[in-house]
Amino acid sequence: MPSYTAPVKDLQFVLQNLLNVAEVDVPGYGDLDAGFTAAVLEEAGKVARDVLAPLNMVGDREGCHLENGIVRTPTGFKAAFDAMKDGGWTALDCDPDYGGQGLPYVMGTAVGEIFVSANMAFNMYQGLTHGAYSAIHAHGTDAQKATYLPKMVTCDWTGTMNLTEPQCGTDLGLMRTKAIPQADGSYLVTGTKIFISAGDHDLADNIIHLVLPNAPGGGDGIKGVSLFIVPKVLVNADGSLGARNAVSVGKIEEKMGIHGNATCVMNYDGAVGYLLGDLHKGMRAMFTMMNEARLGVGLQGYAVAEAAYQNAVLYAKDRLQGRAVTGVENPNGPADPLIVHPDIRRNLMDQKSFVEGARAFTLWGAHLIDRSKRSGDHAAEGMISLLTPVIKGFQTDKGFDMAVAAQQIWGGHGYIEDGGMSQFARDARIAMIYEGANGVQALDLVGRKLAADGGKPVMAFFAMVKDFIKENEDDAVLKDGFLEPLKKASKDAQAAGMYFAANGMKNPNDALAGSYDFMHLMGHVCLGLMWARMAKAAYAGLAAGGDAAFLEAKIATGRYYMARHLPATALHLARIQTGAEPVMALGAEAF
Amino acid sequence: MPSYTAPVKDLQFVLQNLLNVAEVDVPGYGDLDAGFTAAVLEEAGKVARDVLAPLNMVGDREGCHLENGIVRTPTGFKAAFDAMKDGGWTALDCDPDYGGQGLPYVMGTAVGEIFVSANMAFNMYQGLTHGAYSAIHAHGTDAQKATYLPKMVTCDWTGTMNLTEPQCGTDLGLMRTKAIPQADGSYLVTGTKIFISAGDHDLADNIIHLVLPNAPGGGDGIKGVSLFIVPKVLVNADGSLGARNAVSVGKIEEKMGIHGNATCVMNYDGAVGYLLGDLHKGMRAMFTMMNEARLGVGLQGYAVAEAAYQNAVLYAKDRLQGRAVTGVENPNGPADPLIVHPDIRRNLMDQKSFVEGARAFTLWGAHLIDRSKRSGDHAAEGMISLLTPVIKGFQTDKGFDMAVAAQQIWGGHGYIEDGGMSQFARDARIAMIYEGANGVQALDLVGRKLAADGGKPVMAFFAMVKDFIKENEDDAVLKDGFLEPLKKASKDAQAAGMYFAANGMKNPNDALAGSYDFMHLMGHVCLGLMWARMAKAAYAGLAAGGDAAFLEAKIATGRYYMARHLPATALHLARIQTGAEPVMALGAEAF
Repeated sequence: MPSYTAPVKDLQFVLQNLLNVAEVDVPGYGDLDAGFTAAVLEEAGKVARDVLAPLNMVGDREGCHLENGIVRTPTGFKAAFDAMKDGGWTALDCDPDYGGQGLPYVMGTAVGEIFVSANMAFNMYQGLTHGAYSAIHAHGTDAQKATYLPKMVTCDWTGTMNLTEPQCGTDLGLMRTKAIPQADGSYLVTGTKIFISAGDHDLADNIIHLVLPNAPGGGDGIKGVSLFIVPKVLVNADGSLGARNAVSVGKIEEKMGIHGNATCVMNYDGAVGYLLGDLHKGMRAMFTMMNEARLGVGLQGYAVAEAAYQNAVLYAKDRLQGRAVTGVENPNGPADPLIVHPDIRRNLMDQKSFVEGARAFTLWGAHLIDRSKRSGDHAAEGMISLLTPVIKGFQTDKGFDMAVAAQQIWGGHGYIEDGGMSQFARDARIAMIYEGANGVQALDLVGRKLAADGGKPVMAFFAMVKDFIKENEDDAVLKDGFLEPLKKASKDAQAAGMYFAANGMKNPNDALAGSYDFMHLMGHVCLGLMWARMAKAAYAGLAAGGDAAFLEAKIATGRYYMARHLPATALHLARIQTGAEPVMALGAEAF
Repeated sequence: MPSYTAPVKDLQFVLQNLLNVAEVDVPGYGDLDAGFTAAVLEEAGKVARDVLAPLNMVGDREGCHLENGIVRTPTGFKAAFDAMKDGGWTALDCDPDYGGQGLPYVMGTAVGEIFVSANMAFNMYQGLTHGAYSAIHAHGTDAQKATYLPKMVTCDWTGTMNLTEPQCGTDLGLMRTKAIPQADGSYLVTGTKIFISAGDHDLADNIIHLVLPNAPGGGDGIKGVSLFIVPKVLVNADGSLGARNAVSVGKIEEKMGIHGNATCVMNYDGAVGYLLGDLHKGMRAMFTMMNEARLGVGLQGYAVAEAAYQNAVLYAKDRLQGRAVTGVENPNGPADPLIVHPDIRRNLMDQKSFVEGARAFTLWGAHLIDRSKRSGDHAAEGMISLLTPVIKGFQTDKGFDMAVAAQQIWGGHGYIEDGGMSQFARDARIAMIYEGANGVQALDLVGRKLAADGGKPVMAFFAMVKDFIKENEDDAVLKDGFLEPLKKASKDAQAAGMYFAANGMKNPNDALAGSYDFMHLMGHVCLGLMWARMAKAAYAGLAAGGDAAFLEAKIATGRYYMARHLPATALHLARIQTGAEPVMALGAEAF
């Protein structure tokens, strides 16, 4: 069975050396000194190791089962869920007014990585609850907040998001679910929603479904869409549970992975629903939560890769096969461990340098969300809106690739389910699809985010990269290994932006045909920036007498990423600059 | 359920327009006129569509089961296997002296693609039999050939290959299985072999296991390894079946994919075995079959991608979602089909241009094997030995990537097992691992094949590329779109070779750290060469009044590959030229 150890030292490096959270002028950050964050992460690591990780393969093997209309989660999930609740882990970054601990989102994100690495499918039950909590917190009336939030903060009640229907995924204008207003101000919701993660289960007393139907009076399609609270069990005026609502599970989907989480077809048959936020502004309400939700999926991308990486390393050190070409390294054994072989090392370095870079990028993103929400920093909001599709799309693509790479280290044993490496790959695969498939992320980035706010966020991004390079250009140790590759990559990204600007107005397909490559190009620039910043922080740490082995490994890992991955920007730029012509040359009938 | 239609037109193009098989001076090729090859491929296509493809998902769902020591294959497999036998499909390229039809290997390979696309797991039962047939045909005594081959040609008896043991995969020197000689000249084989595909099943009367144990007198490790025939049921002198041999199935592995094929732990407990070929030359005997076996796996890479691609196209044409940014294309529907969107088109073009390029590369490889075996062409043998790790490693990596890309087209429905797209990805994954993991292919390419025969094959390869470019440099329609990118890619590959030559002697790790990138670099050059040749053939076909829609699509697909994929060679070269330093910078303890 795979094992998992929380990378507390590396998370601490990002929080304390890279982001310097304790010294940042954002409300709540003052408490995040190194001792406090280490204590929280260590405790989360124990829960992950002792409670969540041992259930990861159990969840995959058993899956969820629909028994007489009730979804049964895998053995041990209920006890583990109770342990998470009792430990207060579900309330970490929730509003103290509703029982939360009020920690910054960056801290919730760091802890979230640990839980996702240990058991992605399990963690979705609370992750989706957090999303629904955020929606009600942002858009609910005081009465709605008082009714639902305290129970959702503790996960006594969990939450879901209901968008997709059989005939509509990305294109929510095709929606058929309807909400009919009643005399008492409530609505009756009727329709079928599919792919509802944690749609039903036996972990909580109630499930608060957030459902997007069409409500009358707003016109057809996307314009009439409104957001509704549809509880599984209706809540009485005194807060006690009342009658069962007319919502039921049609079936549980059989999926490639995340078997421990129940993906349900949900049938709403005149279920009582309560409008959340403004009528016909359902899409706008969804958008306010989108950055967090997509950052959470981008986190899944690298968090699963981290778990897979740890087990690839264990295997590479343990499995004896062949001899180092430069001379025997394990003379007392029948062969050397796999890790002596350069191509195994290349593979492990790919994984390590991606995961550590993505960790920094994601936590920086979470920090930008804190700046935006806690300090009302408009520029930070623009920046995270720009970067969200990159965090989601780039990191889940690469996270899957790296889980597959980790599986490869195990050879034939990686293909056998007993080893657990297949599960990492199968679980990681979904993150490229849900919460907006990665092609949609690329479209969002190129079609909306580049031009958002008159292009201010994207100009601010490149100015930030340029400023960093300029500020450090006299730093000899950073120059060749970090600043030069970053400068080159950033220039490629800007050239791509120029290409889109020059051609995309005339022919939008010239921009859209390169959107996926641009998302990956930007991903490389972002991780390159993170690595350059981390190298600077690591050199500063060395000068201050920090942990030399750790800091030197950090710098070497960064040098690897810069030398071997940043050159990919030229390839992406070359593809972008071919424009739409080769992409669209064939008529549909030629496929 | 996914569907499958054999790409007969494209296979015909490769056989008749690219390879011109009917005009090639190789024994047996004279019969391969267009009418004959089309008839064979059409018939194979019917079997694939009507018999094999409908069982693909059945095999995945049911898997194989061990019942009282006997492996039961999924529902319908036995009837389908009998249909394949009755149709003579198992005997296509086998020796007529033993009941085969004697067709060239290139034809067996073209038909093989069709069967693998339709049902990869099913086709392994006969694929492994063919491998064992080839080994006995190449190394058996006349008596052994007479005893086993006629039954294996018809698949009345199937075959297996037994190399891997729990403690040894790539490093066969760690082998523990022993063969002890008996007075009658036979041996008793004892040990455990794992990952034995088609190790047991209910499709045939007997299974002829080829087993690699250590035989006394040859020294420890790889030097003592010999190859043995170990029948499941012993064969009497008159050819009838006798007593059950002491070989049994320990268990069936649960795998990520290819569930329809039984992957067995095989226990040999003093099983009677017969030496095949020379004592202590087991590895050499294995090597003689390696090019074919690895080409067969490289074929699986693109054949599964072809099946996934076909279903991605069907979905992209059928699923309505969003509107084309350049204007509504389906005004009578609620939305446009996915295929109007540039990023969907990019994804489909990636798949299509890879699959068609890989098809050409693989059939050219099969043709080289025919030249080598049927005409004794030493240069062809050198060339295919050089290119085999590229066919296997590059094509299975990309084939998996493309199966994943096809799955992505289906969005959330691609993650649900009902749709069948997940199975393509899970099945394709194994091809990167078995028959020598792809890292081992890269090692073989850089560590052995580049220097083989004094470097003659690799020099011949680059001379061939150069000659093709020179011969066609006045051809304006080929120049920009095909010859220039090919020239650039070939230069990058040669620069990589120069880097290895200059640095690899001093520090072998400088070559090995770049081996994986070199395998992919060469893959791009090879597919680039194929596309340039196909474009030339397509232009010639157009000039001769051929099928304009097909030939123009072929040229456009090639231009896409050249413009958007060939530039990857610069990235691979940049990585190679970083050498071992960044790859090996960290000590093992830093992982």
